[in-house]
Amino acid sequence: MGRMLLQAAANYPVETHVMENDDNCPAAHLCRFFIKGSILDFDSVYNFGKELDALTIEIENVNIDALEQLESEGVKVFPKPSVLRIIKNKIAQKEYYTSNEIPTAEYAVTQSISDINNYQHLLPAIHKLAEGGYDGRGVQFLENSDSLQVAFDAPGILEKKVNVKKEIAQIIAVDTKGKTVFYPPVEMIFNKDLNQLDYQICPAEITKQVLWKVEAISLAVVRNFNSPGLFAVELFLNENDDVLVNETAPRVHNSGHHTIEAHYSSQFDMLWRIILEYPLGNTKEIFPSAMINIIGNKGHQGPVTYLGLEDVLEIDNAFVHIYGKTETKPGRKMGHVTVISKEKQDLIHKANKIRQSLSVISRTTG
Amino acid sequence: MGRMLLQAAANYPVETHVMENDDNCPAAHLCRFFIKGSILDFDSVYNFGKELDALTIEIENVNIDALEQLESEGVKVFPKPSVLRIIKNKIAQKEYYTSNEIPTAEYAVTQSISDINNYQHLLPAIHKLAEGGYDGRGVQFLENSDSLQVAFDAPGILEKKVNVKKEIAQIIAVDTKGKTVFYPPVEMIFNKDLNQLDYQICPAEITKQVLWKVEAISLAVVRNFNSPGLFAVELFLNENDDVLVNETAPRVHNSGHHTIEAHYSSQFDMLWRIILEYPLGNTKEIFPSAMINIIGNKGHQGPVTYLGLEDVLEIDNAFVHIYGKTETKPGRKMGHVTVISKEKQDLIHKANKIRQSLSVISRTTG
Repeated sequence: MGRMLLQAAANYPVETHVMENDDNCPAAHLCRFFIKGSILDFDSVYNFGKELDALTIEIENVNIDALEQLESEGVKVFPKPSVLRIIKNKIAQKEYYTSNEIPTAEYAVTQSISDINNYQHLLPAIHKLAEGGYDGRGVQFLENSDSLQVAFDAPGILEKKVNVKKEIAQIIAVDTKGKTVFYPPVEMIFNKDLNQLDYQICPAEITKQVLWKVEAISLAVVRNFNSPGLFAVELFLNENDDVLVNETAPRVHNSGHHTIEAHYSSQFDMLWRIILEYPLGNTKEIFPSAMINIIGNKGHQGPVTYLGLEDVLEIDNAFVHIYGKTETKPGRKMGHVTVISKEKQDLIHKANKIRQSLSVISRTTG
Repeated sequence: MGRMLLQAAANYPVETHVMENDDNCPAAHLCRFFIKGSILDFDSVYNFGKELDALTIEIENVNIDALEQLESEGVKVFPKPSVLRIIKNKIAQKEYYTSNEIPTAEYAVTQSISDINNYQHLLPAIHKLAEGGYDGRGVQFLENSDSLQVAFDAPGILEKKVNVKKEIAQIIAVDTKGKTVFYPPVEMIFNKDLNQLDYQICPAEITKQVLWKVEAISLAVVRNFNSPGLFAVELFLNENDDVLVNETAPRVHNSGHHTIEAHYSSQFDMLWRIILEYPLGNTKEIFPSAMINIIGNKGHQGPVTYLGLEDVLEIDNAFVHIYGKTETKPGRKMGHVTVISKEKQDLIHKANKIRQSLSVISRTTG
C-alpha cells in the first residue's frame, strides 16, 4: 500500500519519509528517507513525525497516542487520530455507526465467550475481535450454539449474519476544507463454494436507488469523522435492497487498487492531493475495470516465486502489480492485477483467466 | 526519465540499482541501491555494472567502452553498446541511415567551419555538432552564407533544411528474440512564431499511407541495429509526403511520456518487459492524448517554484508529473502533463490552457 502511495508521490513536489520495522519492506526503497522503527511504539512514532509537515498511515494498528501528541503540536495527520481510535476498535466502530444512526448489522458487545450465550438470538453470527484483526484474522463465523467453542474469549462484537446480495465498497475523498468526492462504488464477486473473493468489478452493478443509498450512507460515515482523508466504506446490500455498513478503512484500501489505471485520479493520487492541499482529483472511471488480488497459495510459506506471470502479461488490457514482498504466506496479498474494458463480459472472462493462471508459491516448500 | 522507469519497475519483481553523479537526482530515492558516480568514467560504469544482470541507460552520453566490456563479460545491455556508438555521434548516425538506405535529409560531413564553404548548395541548413548536443544545444540554423559565423568549428554534419509539414515520432519496442511492436506515432505541434514545441498529440493525424511509410522506415532503423530495446525514431514529413528520419533515441524518450496513462503498456513498462524477458505489452492507446512539457521559464535559474499547478490539477482529464529536480534553468524539462480525451478539440484546448497556466520560476531570481 505504501509502495503504491510512493509511486504516486513521485509525480508531485514532495519529500517522503517512511517508517517501518522491516528495512526490506516494499516501501523502503521508494522514499526519500527510510527509518526503521515500530509503528506501535510511542517514541518511535513521535520522533519520526515531529519534524514532518504531515503524516498518513497504511494500517490502523499504529500508536495513536503518539499521533495525537504530534497533532497537538501542529503536525497534520491524515486521517485524524480520533478517527483511528474509532476504527481500530471494532466495538467503538460499531457504536459510532449506531450513535450516528448509520445502518449496520444488528450486534451485541461481548467481553468473553460466556457472554455470547446471552445473545443466542443473533445466531448465525460473525464474532469479531475488538482489536488486532486483519486480512481475515480475528473473525469467526458462529453457525449455531454448537459452534461457540471457536469464538474469542476476549472483547469483541457478535454480529448477526446478513443475507448478503452484494458486497459493495465506496471510496470517498475528503479534503481539508471538508469538500468530498465519491468514486463509483465497487462490487465484490465471491466464489460461493470457497467463500473467497474472486475479483472486484467497478462500477458496481446496482440500481440508481441503491447507489444513492450507498452514497448517502457513506457520506454520513465520513461526515461525522470530521477529518480529511481517503476513506473506503465497505457495505452489504441485503435481499431487501437495504444498505448496511460493514466496516470502514480510513486510508487507501485494497478495494481502490483499480483506480490506478482505470480512473483519472487514483486513490493514491487523491490522498496526495488531500495532503498537499491541491484540488481534489477526478474520480470518474476512464473505463470499467476488474481487479484481482494476487494471493499466496495455501501450503506455501517462504521466499516467493510467481507462476503464470507471463500468461497474465500476455493479456492485452491487464496491468500487473507485484508488491515486492520477499516472503509469501498462505492468503498473503502479494500483488494485484487490474483489467480495463468497456465490455463487462471481457472483464469477467479475463478476471477468471488471471485467477486461474497465477500461482504464488515458495521456492523452498513444494 | 530514470524516475519514471523506476516508478514502472515497482510493479515487477526486480531489484533496481542506479548510478548518477548527483545523489539528489530525481532517481536517487526510488531505487533499491543508489551509487554516486560518473556515467562517463570507465571504472565507475564498469564497477557499477559488473555484478548486475542487465543495464539500461537514460542518455546516450555514457562510457560506451565500459558497456562493451560488461557486454563481453555477459551483462545484458539495453540497447547494445554498438547502437550507442552509432547514435552518440551524429556523423556515424547519419552514415548509418544512408548506408542502410533509410531516407534522411541530404547532408555533408564537416570537420571545421571552412568545410562548410564547400557545401553552400545545402543552405539553408542545420549544422549539428557530431558529439555532445542535447536538448537543443549543439545545433545551429544557417540561413545563408552570411550566417556561417554561428557554425561549429568542430566535426559535425551540415543538413539541408527540410520543408517540414509535420514532425512525427515513432516508438518501437524490440524484445530479445527480435519481435517488434509499434506504438501509434505521435505528432509534434509547434508554435510557429516561437519555433518551440507547444505539445504533442497521439495518434498523429496522418494518412494510412504516411503511417505505413513511418512504420516501414522506423522498422528499417531498428532492424539494422540488431539490438533489443525501446527506440524512438523522430521523423519529418515533408510537403510531398516523403518521410525522412531526423534522429533516433535508443531509449525511453520524451515523445513517449503520454504512454504512461494513455496506453495499456507505457514505454517504461515496455522496457522492463524487454529487460525481464516478459511478453511485450499492448501499445494501443486507451484514449487519444496530448502531452505538454513543463519547461523552465526564461530568465529563471535556481531553486524551483511552480506557478499555476493548482489550475492544472483542476483539469478533469489531466495527469501531472513533476520530476523532482531541485533547480530550474531556462528551457530545462522539469515535468510534463498528459491529457487524455476522445475529442481532439478537447485535447488541443486543454493543452493550450495548461501551457498558459504553468510557469516554472526560481525563488531566488525574479
